[in-house]
Amino acid sequence: MSHRVDNFCSGPAALPTAVLEKAQAELLDWQGMGVSVMELSHRSQEFQAVCDTAEKNLRDLLGIPVNYRVLFLQGGATLQFSAIPLNLASAGQVADYIDTGIWSRKALAEGKRYCAARVAASADASGYTSVPPESQWQLSDKAAYVHITPNETIGGVEFDWIPETGDVPLVADLSSTILSRPLDVSRFGLIYAGAQKNIGPSGLTVVIVREDLLDRAQEVTPTLLSYRTQADNGSMYNTPPTLAIYLAGLVFEWLREQGGLSAMAEINRRKAARLYAYIDESDFYNNPIEVSSRSWMNIPFTLADDQLNGRFLNEAEESGLLNLQGHRSVGGMRASIYNAISEDAVGRLIGFMDEFARQVR
Amino acid sequence: MSHRVDNFCSGPAALPTAVLEKAQAELLDWQGMGVSVMELSHRSQEFQAVCDTAEKNLRDLLGIPVNYRVLFLQGGATLQFSAIPLNLASAGQVADYIDTGIWSRKALAEGKRYCAARVAASADASGYTSVPPESQWQLSDKAAYVHITPNETIGGVEFDWIPETGDVPLVADLSSTILSRPLDVSRFGLIYAGAQKNIGPSGLTVVIVREDLLDRAQEVTPTLLSYRTQADNGSMYNTPPTLAIYLAGLVFEWLREQGGLSAMAEINRRKAARLYAYIDESDFYNNPIEVSSRSWMNIPFTLADDQLNGRFLNEAEESGLLNLQGHRSVGGMRASIYNAISEDAVGRLIGFMDEFARQVR
Repeated sequence: MSHRVDNFCSGPAALPTAVLEKAQAELLDWQGMGVSVMELSHRSQEFQAVCDTAEKNLRDLLGIPVNYRVLFLQGGATLQFSAIPLNLASAGQVADYIDTGIWSRKALAEGKRYCAARVAASADASGYTSVPPESQWQLSDKAAYVHITPNETIGGVEFDWIPETGDVPLVADLSSTILSRPLDVSRFGLIYAGAQKNIGPSGLTVVIVREDLLDRAQEVTPTLLSYRTQADNGSMYNTPPTLAIYLAGLVFEWLREQGGLSAMAEINRRKAARLYAYIDESDFYNNPIEVSSRSWMNIPFTLADDQLNGRFLNEAEESGLLNLQGHRSVGGMRASIYNAISEDAVGRLIGFMDEFARQVR
Repeated sequence: MSHRVDNFCSGPAALPTAVLEKAQAELLDWQGMGVSVMELSHRSQEFQAVCDTAEKNLRDLLGIPVNYRVLFLQGGATLQFSAIPLNLASAGQVADYIDTGIWSRKALAEGKRYCAARVAASADASGYTSVPPESQWQLSDKAAYVHITPNETIGGVEFDWIPETGDVPLVADLSSTILSRPLDVSRFGLIYAGAQKNIGPSGLTVVIVREDLLDRAQEVTPTLLSYRTQADNGSMYNTPPTLAIYLAGLVFEWLREQGGLSAMAEINRRKAARLYAYIDESDFYNNPIEVSSRSWMNIPFTLADDQLNGRFLNEAEESGLLNLQGHRSVGGMRASIYNAISEDAVGRLIGFMDEFARQVR
């Protein structure tokens, strides 16, 4: 048994111990072949099977309709910030962005470089403590797409519904919330997610795109960023990140063993509810987000006295609770409680928080 | 001891067993922290140290001058085919490409999309069996850069010298030859390499770029592809492929333990010389490449009777010699003998080839 702590990192995030144990056991000799999975040719039937199984399990978990392609790419959500306008909008065409925090604004800034990206609604008025209701959105008539960030990893603000955008494709950065619960993929034109929260190690990006959106790319789109090129080549126009795809595949298998996304949703709902309930009861900790917009995955909180932040983090670490520091842009604390964080780990966090609050009084 | 075979895959290629063993031992608990290295925040001082050490070792191994930046990127050499013209040429500016095979032509085709990329010399006349001598190159007066592919992974054609391009930056795709021997980096403007041959797993791309070339990017360059952006952010404008960087770092350490690149060069020179000598002596095997242009890393060869290819591959596999099939575009066989392939492994390959040739007579 390896020594393992509770790791609340926002990403690269904790992975299930069972997944790491399996990877460890077969790291030098995969399936008895005498080579590591990372030493397999991506053109081999063995690696193609790894890829196909990963895609099939992801499709089953999310119920991805047949008219959507699953792409295993590189470059993170940030490269998709460029790829999305390049692939889906013509130069000068309007694209609507919903501003709910730092990540949606990063997507917007890059979008503006390739099309007439604009803010159709902003959480600015609420100090980024809630998602602006759809009734306040000022959508364009003929937008190339509407872009949302369903969960803001830094702010801890989350959509609790899927907006209705009619014929305009809905595009969503699901990096920090994909696979945390069931999802109606058919409501989206395109979903993208960096792997390093709920999917696997960093260095892999999953894109799920509706087939009718594959052929809109601008001339200047780098070939590797073209969704059509990647779809036609089964994500192997060039060598894909094979080790990361293999590890993601192990995570998908693990999720099926846990009972799939309905089971994960129940666990994740309980985890978040327990932590928010404790914070709300406490007069020492605070979370500023409006209840209906609270993230299940990233829970920022502050201490009644900021001077105690350093001590809180040190003592947490001594108790085996790692990476609770909030993002450098907002300060305070943040607990990221993705799929690999167990209910017991959340219990240990609450136990520590409670003990700490009592000690410092 | 894990069961390990000799893996002559062109990439993703064999990695040193010692590197995989170290990664395996600490996969769940890195440095006693109770987390995997792939679960570390890329913003943590611990991961920054992994990155810094990897860069320092790479700089030491290659003797990289201080006015060059080392970037750890994603997307493979193929994404660099776009990034290079986007970063180094203005639209319409001429860039000279030396055509020595499939990979240089792929680079050229993408180059043409962003600048006036042209062929300044081609191995076409020799049937791609030799690098065209510099005396035959028709370089442009004011090219943005001259692009070469010092080793053609598929054709097995290699430069045995570094061309002199004066004030015009020399750009080289060193994917399949970097770290196989010492290199005078100062002769190049930019070097790039997909990791999956001599560096580490796929999903990591190393770029070594001279500082004066950082600020020429075209307006349409995606932010993540901008060398300036990546250089200013220490390759962490967004989450880098942390697991791949860690594994590359272990390979760099292993190379230092082997005695560095001079020691590797001696081993690699002997490995290639032995295999070519055997092929040339044999009247059953053939390598068509002109002696001075023969690759040290990728050695294609044909059998006297193509009908025996399938049997050769099957029996090789039964003897623990994997992935000897030539690239689908050229057929025949290919042995890729990167750094992780030992002299003993080359000896075993020759032993098998000799036994096979005698059997089928």
